[in-house]
Amino acid sequence: MGSWKDIAAAKREAILDSIPSKWRISPIPSREEQKDVTGPYIHQFLSKEEIQITETDAVGLANQISSGSWKATEVTEAFCHRASLAHQLTNCLHETFFDAALSDAKDLDDYLAKHGKTLGPLHGVPISLKDQFHVKGVDTSMGYVGWIGTFQGIKNDPRKGVYESEMVRELRALGAVLYCKTSVPHTLMSGETVNNIIEYTWNPKNRNLCSGGSSGGEGALIGLKGSPAGFGTDSGGSIRVPAAFNGLYGIRPSAGRLPFEGMPNSMDGQNSILSVVGPLATTIGGVRLLVKAILSQSPWLHDPLVVDMPWRDWVEHETQDLIKAAASGNSKLSFATLKHDGVVGLHPPVARALQLCADLLAKAGHKVIEWKPPSHEHGAKLVFNSWKYDGGADIHSAMALSGEPLAQQLFLFGDKPEKQYSAAEISANNVALREWRKQYMDYWNSTTELTGTGRPVDGVITAVAPFAAAPPLGYTYYGYTMFVNGLDYTSVVIPVTMVDKSLDVVDHSYQPLNDIDKTIQNGYDPEIYDGAHVSVQLVGRRLQEEKMLLLAEHLGSILKT
Amino acid sequence: MGSWKDIAAAKREAILDSIPSKWRISPIPSREEQKDVTGPYIHQFLSKEEIQITETDAVGLANQISSGSWKATEVTEAFCHRASLAHQLTNCLHETFFDAALSDAKDLDDYLAKHGKTLGPLHGVPISLKDQFHVKGVDTSMGYVGWIGTFQGIKNDPRKGVYESEMVRELRALGAVLYCKTSVPHTLMSGETVNNIIEYTWNPKNRNLCSGGSSGGEGALIGLKGSPAGFGTDSGGSIRVPAAFNGLYGIRPSAGRLPFEGMPNSMDGQNSILSVVGPLATTIGGVRLLVKAILSQSPWLHDPLVVDMPWRDWVEHETQDLIKAAASGNSKLSFATLKHDGVVGLHPPVARALQLCADLLAKAGHKVIEWKPPSHEHGAKLVFNSWKYDGGADIHSAMALSGEPLAQQLFLFGDKPEKQYSAAEISANNVALREWRKQYMDYWNSTTELTGTGRPVDGVITAVAPFAAAPPLGYTYYGYTMFVNGLDYTSVVIPVTMVDKSLDVVDHSYQPLNDIDKTIQNGYDPEIYDGAHVSVQLVGRRLQEEKMLLLAEHLGSILKT
Repeated sequence: MGSWKDIAAAKREAILDSIPSKWRISPIPSREEQKDVTGPYIHQFLSKEEIQITETDAVGLANQISSGSWKATEVTEAFCHRASLAHQLTNCLHETFFDAALSDAKDLDDYLAKHGKTLGPLHGVPISLKDQFHVKGVDTSMGYVGWIGTFQGIKNDPRKGVYESEMVRELRALGAVLYCKTSVPHTLMSGETVNNIIEYTWNPKNRNLCSGGSSGGEGALIGLKGSPAGFGTDSGGSIRVPAAFNGLYGIRPSAGRLPFEGMPNSMDGQNSILSVVGPLATTIGGVRLLVKAILSQSPWLHDPLVVDMPWRDWVEHETQDLIKAAASGNSKLSFATLKHDGVVGLHPPVARALQLCADLLAKAGHKVIEWKPPSHEHGAKLVFNSWKYDGGADIHSAMALSGEPLAQQLFLFGDKPEKQYSAAEISANNVALREWRKQYMDYWNSTTELTGTGRPVDGVITAVAPFAAAPPLGYTYYGYTMFVNGLDYTSVVIPVTMVDKSLDVVDHSYQPLNDIDKTIQNGYDPEIYDGAHVSVQLVGRRLQEEKMLLLAEHLGSILKT
Repeated sequence: MGSWKDIAAAKREAILDSIPSKWRISPIPSREEQKDVTGPYIHQFLSKEEIQITETDAVGLANQISSGSWKATEVTEAFCHRASLAHQLTNCLHETFFDAALSDAKDLDDYLAKHGKTLGPLHGVPISLKDQFHVKGVDTSMGYVGWIGTFQGIKNDPRKGVYESEMVRELRALGAVLYCKTSVPHTLMSGETVNNIIEYTWNPKNRNLCSGGSSGGEGALIGLKGSPAGFGTDSGGSIRVPAAFNGLYGIRPSAGRLPFEGMPNSMDGQNSILSVVGPLATTIGGVRLLVKAILSQSPWLHDPLVVDMPWRDWVEHETQDLIKAAASGNSKLSFATLKHDGVVGLHPPVARALQLCADLLAKAGHKVIEWKPPSHEHGAKLVFNSWKYDGGADIHSAMALSGEPLAQQLFLFGDKPEKQYSAAEISANNVALREWRKQYMDYWNSTTELTGTGRPVDGVITAVAPFAAAPPLGYTYYGYTMFVNGLDYTSVVIPVTMVDKSLDVVDHSYQPLNDIDKTIQNGYDPEIYDGAHVSVQLVGRRLQEEKMLLLAEHLGSILKT
């Protein structure tokens, strides 16, 4: 074996080489030459039919294929092509398995022709996966050079190349076509997607900026419509950040709703703050389709951590009734907006997006109040502690497999393993976390006094990050996502607008509260950010996926009118 | 302050002194003089009306009170009387608050008279609580001498005497009358109820034997019908063991179903194996009433660890349909029996009870198969590890508050704190636990091949302990309950029979597998055990409370015919 550099370079080449030559771009423009590679730019490489297919969302694809208008094979081929382009422009893929995908798609077309019905609700729909899912026939590197050619770093493990994660089994049973795995930052613990294999995943809308992380490959790929929908994971914001930075919808479900079974993880077994799996998609309908489809597989019979909770139509109906009642002026929904988390203020375009949501919701007849919750700083500290329990032992041992260095973005893990938390220290953190959750819950309940609806707020709208995205090494504050992980709440990301340098000027009157606030606010440059996506998250209580998806759809539709 | 002995003796006296002199027994017979103090023995101290009231179950009491046949005050007084007798005969109480209870009962009677309706489904029903719930006006010692007169060991804490646990708030809102708190072993980690305050809680049916633990005061009190129903907690068997040893129904719900919020705990913050709260009662109807009543309070809005899952009528209906179908021979339910867990065999009466259940279920038309699960020994080891994470630091610091010694039953914690688990060691245990749960789940699924019902088994029936109860220092094996905690499954205890020395003779042919098996089997003495309750547990999958309660009722009714 060569050095980590050689192994990483070989893997990097292998990914590129897996792309058919007919789909290679040459030369690839620099970001100075072509900042935004979405839309017209990428269209030049695609046929009209390919554009039509790849710009159809997961719901539309499922309908077109089940009705026989499109074949699963042609849909799959179109997405394989566009994903190949996306990778060349943003470094968003770790694995491709286009031949297997086309073979599966062929089987699905044959099945439909033979039986006159689909295999399942995702029949023929291409679904991309963060490189944290085990899929037969390809590596799961999770960004670690030392995992290449192994099973989670173990050489000659019999599971290598054959084992599949539980959700992969379920997606196949639902008729989904799997065709690629997407890039992640090594360790998964970064809002930027950087590793020693693909190096850096860029934001396709604005290649000055990151695609977010840790599901940053998903974000870039779906943002470029190289996939209609895919799955990421989120332990501190890793679904929501890439969704937000790429103008996508995405959901961070509560822990125990969707099956994480059979997936590797960083610091696996840390169970104070569980990572969760959830979809990102070009539309809210796509997100909903995937959540509902997975729940139809009774994942609680196959993953010991999943709660026995099927998709609840009655929650949707209740929510739908509330929306209708509000529209007719008979009743109201109520929302809260959090415009500052008490630690770091928002960049001007993010503050504008939040205000836009508040204004439009009020205009639509809903009550909007200000959110004044228990300390987010305290909650984020407790979450952060859980990341430090093992002192970086797991991370550093994974890096040591190849000798590769940690990216600068992972500064939180230091140069070498540190002292671990003791059992009593972990227990104390768990108690503090539970107490903070209880305070937060009581605060949420208390808003019944303010909403005028007879109920506490239906959702809280806030930023996903202080910035629309971040330039390399610029993702330095995680508080806006971490509080949701600390609370284990449901959160849905909703794209709102784009940075407009003429509207979103620097706020010279801004008074920073502290050094990090100052650094972040000073990092806003309208010229660099211009054109980037700006999104918000709509946060609901624990295990409120059905309700929050419907409210997100409602807000999304208001934003479009 | 005096020595721990003085403080403990003063508390012991204070408990006795809180019992009105009219209800004192003198002399109290020794267990040699009066082994069984239930039924005819205790009846001599009660009026005919008191006997009628106290031998009515929680459902009957709720009905009689809501219909106006009985006043909450007379019901409360009758149970205060019988509980007072129970304590004198078994040492089952830590706290009495009869005056407050009678005052609450009076308010409830006034409410019903004024409004013509009840406050809630538990209107006027006396409910006992393990001394782990905070109730205003009285101590929560949890068996620790050092906690007497403090709030969880903290002197001058403003919560002392005023703070109430979340479930206490809910019980009051439901109309329950709270009147006493029951004994526990210090540390809560024992199948016998022993501490330096009340010393030892005896089994009222057979005072050679323990009442079980850790909710042993609940077991003895309800066993003597000094309470119709009460709440215990279970992290290794602590609801099920006292229920089984006292001929009661009891449920260990899955974690997150009922609210533990605001209760102290041993090793609080250890979150690999969560302790759960659940009811014990004289009838299955009483257990069901309490679970359903608490869920009607939406505990998920008040306890961050509770899952948003109301009582599911549809699960009950589905189960009822299966029972009806089996009765008409159209379809079947299927059960499995586990007659040996691979480590310790059962005493003859327990083996007989299990076989009786299997025979009667088969006779009723159900399929009964043998349970051959993944290693229970391995699962129990992983649970045991979680108890050892902090090396006894929490336990020993609680004992050190007063300088009192640990009871011999708590040998697992050693003489002083030991080395704690590191974060990485805890993570490894969590991963091993998740993998074992997954294996177990897959095994359960695999029984579809054997049941002939098209479904995997509906429930697994096994012992709660290898013995019907245990004499002091005899509770030495926890494997039959711990596997359920390791899996976080639902388990309902069902009383089956009594030890009969003429039927349950020593099995001289028994071949022990190991030393502990040999010691336990040798501990069986028909003379000592004669007349003791023998029970089984019916184990279902995670969060299957509605289904398992209905199946337990079904099995209970078969056993009575």
